[in-house]
Amino acid sequence: MTFDLIEKDSADAYKILASLVTPRPIAWVTTLDAQGVVNAAPFSFFNVFGSKPPLVAFAPGDREAGVPKDTARNIRQNGEFVIHLVDASVAAAMNSTAASLPYGESELDQLGLNLAAGESVSVPWIREAPAALECRQHSTIEIGSNRVVLGIVQRVHVREGVLDPKTKRIDVSAYQPIGRMASPSWYCQTDSLFEMQRPK
Amino acid sequence: MTFDLIEKDSADAYKILASLVTPRPIAWVTTLDAQGVVNAAPFSFFNVFGSKPPLVAFAPGDREAGVPKDTARNIRQNGEFVIHLVDASVAAAMNSTAASLPYGESELDQLGLNLAAGESVSVPWIREAPAALECRQHSTIEIGSNRVVLGIVQRVHVREGVLDPKTKRIDVSAYQPIGRMASPSWYCQTDSLFEMQRPK
Repeated sequence: MTFDLIEKDSADAYKILASLVTPRPIAWVTTLDAQGVVNAAPFSFFNVFGSKPPLVAFAPGDREAGVPKDTARNIRQNGEFVIHLVDASVAAAMNSTAASLPYGESELDQLGLNLAAGESVSVPWIREAPAALECRQHSTIEIGSNRVVLGIVQRVHVREGVLDPKTKRIDVSAYQPIGRMASPSWYCQTDSLFEMQRPK
Repeated sequence: MTFDLIEKDSADAYKILASLVTPRPIAWVTTLDAQGVVNAAPFSFFNVFGSKPPLVAFAPGDREAGVPKDTARNIRQNGEFVIHLVDASVAAAMNSTAASLPYGESELDQLGLNLAAGESVSVPWIREAPAALECRQHSTIEIGSNRVVLGIVQRVHVREGVLDPKTKRIDVSAYQPIGRMASPSWYCQTDSLFEMQRPK
């Protein structure tokens, strides 16, 4: 079965690509507005893209056509954000922050989460998340209606027990982030693991 | 536990980020060299980033410092590639194409896979993969030692039964791509699904 995406309208292209390109890691992003309100929102058009320098990218999208989401607006103003990874313990909280609130209202107020002060950025991070990446914007690329924020990771906070500080290897039983699956509402657990050694 | 990635060497930053930013979708990429040899290699610094136009990005990295992998070299020459998603049926074949062969030798020769002619690009695609995205390079960004290829998806091939051609929704029981997990060798299955409805 073949689909010509250039001919299709973008709603179809979105459904097809957001369903096929899976599982996607989830960036639960905090930003800070000029009044000091902390915004939180999840995005799964997201990944790491290199380590020299430590490079991540995510696409915050628009609230509606031409109106950037608060996340994009805040990053444009101050260039800082924190990306949290999401496991089962914060999955419901993450999902509840996907609601669009009026600009200046915090998604975090009702959730009983604990914020910690950022060390490399002024944006606070969510203590309950298993991992938090403090980032500075490198640049933002606009391609058609798409907006991709490129960030350099300054500092990483990891829940106790997840990472061996000597080897920098992860304990895969202690860290099971959820993944984003097919549009509109599917997610996966990552408790079913297997290993494949890279060939020489 | 906190790590300052700017102070760390990039090997540590790689281990930390490639283990935390998971599960990652896998791009099994075919390209074509000037002699007509088909190259195949997997990359998990990859995602979709928008639908207007249909935008994907992946980081092909270097074979060794300063020497681009064949994938990057071929895309630089002709600007075309096909990204395949990977499920259990092609996982071993995908992994075997991670081996570095001399330039001009095909990773696909020994694998008994069937190639089909590209329709929007001259690069062939692998029939056994559950989904194949024919892409043209939009641009390639270099940030430090990192290289990010941005591509526009022209055409999508999907295995029969995966996508409802009317609704463009996926049958989540018919499509279970594997995901890349913690460095160096962990993968996940995506058979353990759950739904969360986006709040209004």
